[in-house]
Amino acid sequence: MREVFVAGVGSTSFGKHPDVSIEGLAANAAAQAILESGVDRTRIGALYLGNFISGPLNGKEVLAGIVAERVGLPGNIPCTKVEGACASGGIAFRHAWMAIAAGMCDAVLVVGVEKMSHASTAQVTSALNCAMDNEHDGPSGLTFPGLFGLAWRSYAHQYGLTREEVASVVIKNKANGLKNPLAQMGAILSVEEIQASPMIADPLQMFDCCPASDGAAVVLLTSASLLSGSAFPKIKVLASAQTSGSPRIAHHADLCTFDATVTAARRAYEMSGLSAKDINVVELHDCFSVAEIIDSEDLGLIPRGQGAKWAQESRTSVEGEVAINPSGGLLAKGHPVGATGIGQVYEVVQQLRGTHPNQVKGANIGMTHNLGGTGVACTVNILGVAE
Amino acid sequence: MREVFVAGVGSTSFGKHPDVSIEGLAANAAAQAILESGVDRTRIGALYLGNFISGPLNGKEVLAGIVAERVGLPGNIPCTKVEGACASGGIAFRHAWMAIAAGMCDAVLVVGVEKMSHASTAQVTSALNCAMDNEHDGPSGLTFPGLFGLAWRSYAHQYGLTREEVASVVIKNKANGLKNPLAQMGAILSVEEIQASPMIADPLQMFDCCPASDGAAVVLLTSASLLSGSAFPKIKVLASAQTSGSPRIAHHADLCTFDATVTAARRAYEMSGLSAKDINVVELHDCFSVAEIIDSEDLGLIPRGQGAKWAQESRTSVEGEVAINPSGGLLAKGHPVGATGIGQVYEVVQQLRGTHPNQVKGANIGMTHNLGGTGVACTVNILGVAE
Repeated sequence: MREVFVAGVGSTSFGKHPDVSIEGLAANAAAQAILESGVDRTRIGALYLGNFISGPLNGKEVLAGIVAERVGLPGNIPCTKVEGACASGGIAFRHAWMAIAAGMCDAVLVVGVEKMSHASTAQVTSALNCAMDNEHDGPSGLTFPGLFGLAWRSYAHQYGLTREEVASVVIKNKANGLKNPLAQMGAILSVEEIQASPMIADPLQMFDCCPASDGAAVVLLTSASLLSGSAFPKIKVLASAQTSGSPRIAHHADLCTFDATVTAARRAYEMSGLSAKDINVVELHDCFSVAEIIDSEDLGLIPRGQGAKWAQESRTSVEGEVAINPSGGLLAKGHPVGATGIGQVYEVVQQLRGTHPNQVKGANIGMTHNLGGTGVACTVNILGVAE
Repeated sequence: MREVFVAGVGSTSFGKHPDVSIEGLAANAAAQAILESGVDRTRIGALYLGNFISGPLNGKEVLAGIVAERVGLPGNIPCTKVEGACASGGIAFRHAWMAIAAGMCDAVLVVGVEKMSHASTAQVTSALNCAMDNEHDGPSGLTFPGLFGLAWRSYAHQYGLTREEVASVVIKNKANGLKNPLAQMGAILSVEEIQASPMIADPLQMFDCCPASDGAAVVLLTSASLLSGSAFPKIKVLASAQTSGSPRIAHHADLCTFDATVTAARRAYEMSGLSAKDINVVELHDCFSVAEIIDSEDLGLIPRGQGAKWAQESRTSVEGEVAINPSGGLLAKGHPVGATGIGQVYEVVQQLRGTHPNQVKGANIGMTHNLGGTGVACTVNILGVAE
């Protein structure tokens, strides 16, 4: 297996882009990633695109081919859309990594994109529900806020959890988002304001939920031989793991953990030879406030039952023991579904370069965690500054 | 690169399956492929699923994870849906081949599935149109029958083409379909009956168009080490190529050829060390009658301008110089979009085993050709009986 490097990254802001088409968003971010890489477009040998619901929401598929043409990539290279619900972006990243690691290509463009903000809440909810086993769980009437509301109750029952503790995750991520120019909904919030926000799926309130977003993020991965053109420090992919889990809620014996995350993290640690204590900065899948608590424990970063307490004690802030979601995460940066996994890589790369607007001091090793549906798909990547 | 083999295949019939869910179709075909392979399910290291429009037509995504659970695959293996319009199945096959060739897995399950027959013609047409660059070509009002109607006119202008010549493709494939128990619409047709069928997009008439279908096909690919359990002759993947082309119709300088096919075929011949004259049997993408003519020339099987004449002279029949679509092809077997590329592999494997109901005598080398949209994605595979 060959070493794989991040040669360039690009991103649109996450938020509302009513005047830009979904392929336009992707092309804008792609141009930025290619330009900063210094890699000639003719060297790009494949494109992977992560997208979840452009069919139902935009009436568009074959986006991989459409974006390749927009960006001016060489004709006839393989262009593939991959889908695994909210983990679609992470899956695209892993396939690009595989193609280079296996020696099939020297440069692969990885695109994550989604456009959702034009659709009604009902349309978005219905489209997002395609991420569960609708045949079995659909008739229950459960939506994803409902599922994570259940997870909160289960966590509270097993470990104890107060509204104030969960609010501390929201407060941290919203404040982080305020420092990130790409973020959709940064804010300075108080516990009282969070408690006063509308109830969505008891006990989840509005500020506990990520927004619907438009956005694109792009990474150009290359083998070592193509890196010379870049002015940035070498960022190496130390591990890239992809797993799956049950799409059916009743098959999850414990709603306070996702198997897919636990296994992906274990594989990523094994692949990289690192452990949780080596990770300086993490961008993880906080689609809801309580998800950050569960994810941080599943990734082995925080002991079981301590996720919320660590947030409340500022141990997951930019100055803390492990910086979690300095970008603002999905809660504040936004969640253009297919783009999220690549957006996380974008953020970690800025951290490792030392150029992040909410910089974690001396960050050398970063992790991304992208989770789909009921844990049906998951990717965990570890990136590091190459010696 | 390691050698890759077909250890087992399975398929539902193509047609209408109103009482089976889309994941049920996939699981039925998968069980068959796994059973006949003799490979223990616990050895399967990944799943790729090709599907195009289950989101818009079935309100279901994450099918890769859902099917893996239904089939009882090991928990936490990577499960990925890939999409490239009508070439989605072929793209899934190629990714499974890559994973084994690169040594990342020893056994990969490849699933192709679509369920369309429950939807109205308007819904199906609108969903299929997601396979073109809707931003640019949508406003023209063009549909896929419209595009292939234009291709027919362009071909007639460049090379000459009569209604009778094109009808000979329909007559051959419909008759072949009648011998295939999996086929949706086999028939004995006369030129007069074809000429009397309703006009769809002048000059394409009803019998020139493939039907909307439900169906699933599954292949289990393995490395050499896992083959011992199978009672069937060893079938080896000699080449697997994936390409792309312009999604925009105006960017095709010549509607009588698809770049993506020409390039994929060239790469597949190079990879296998074979040439067109070595191919005994071909399953190619005859979504419309005229498409078979264009495809067979793009694949280098028939000289330019001769595709229709060869059909009329029975040179592409089961007894001819190169047997094209002995399964009935998309025209007669049916076109459950995401399943088609894997269904073609299923058919060629039966031919190479010598067990096909419409057997090509002495077939040792077979080819599959799966084309998406306006040629935006294409895969060509060459399979052979291993020594």
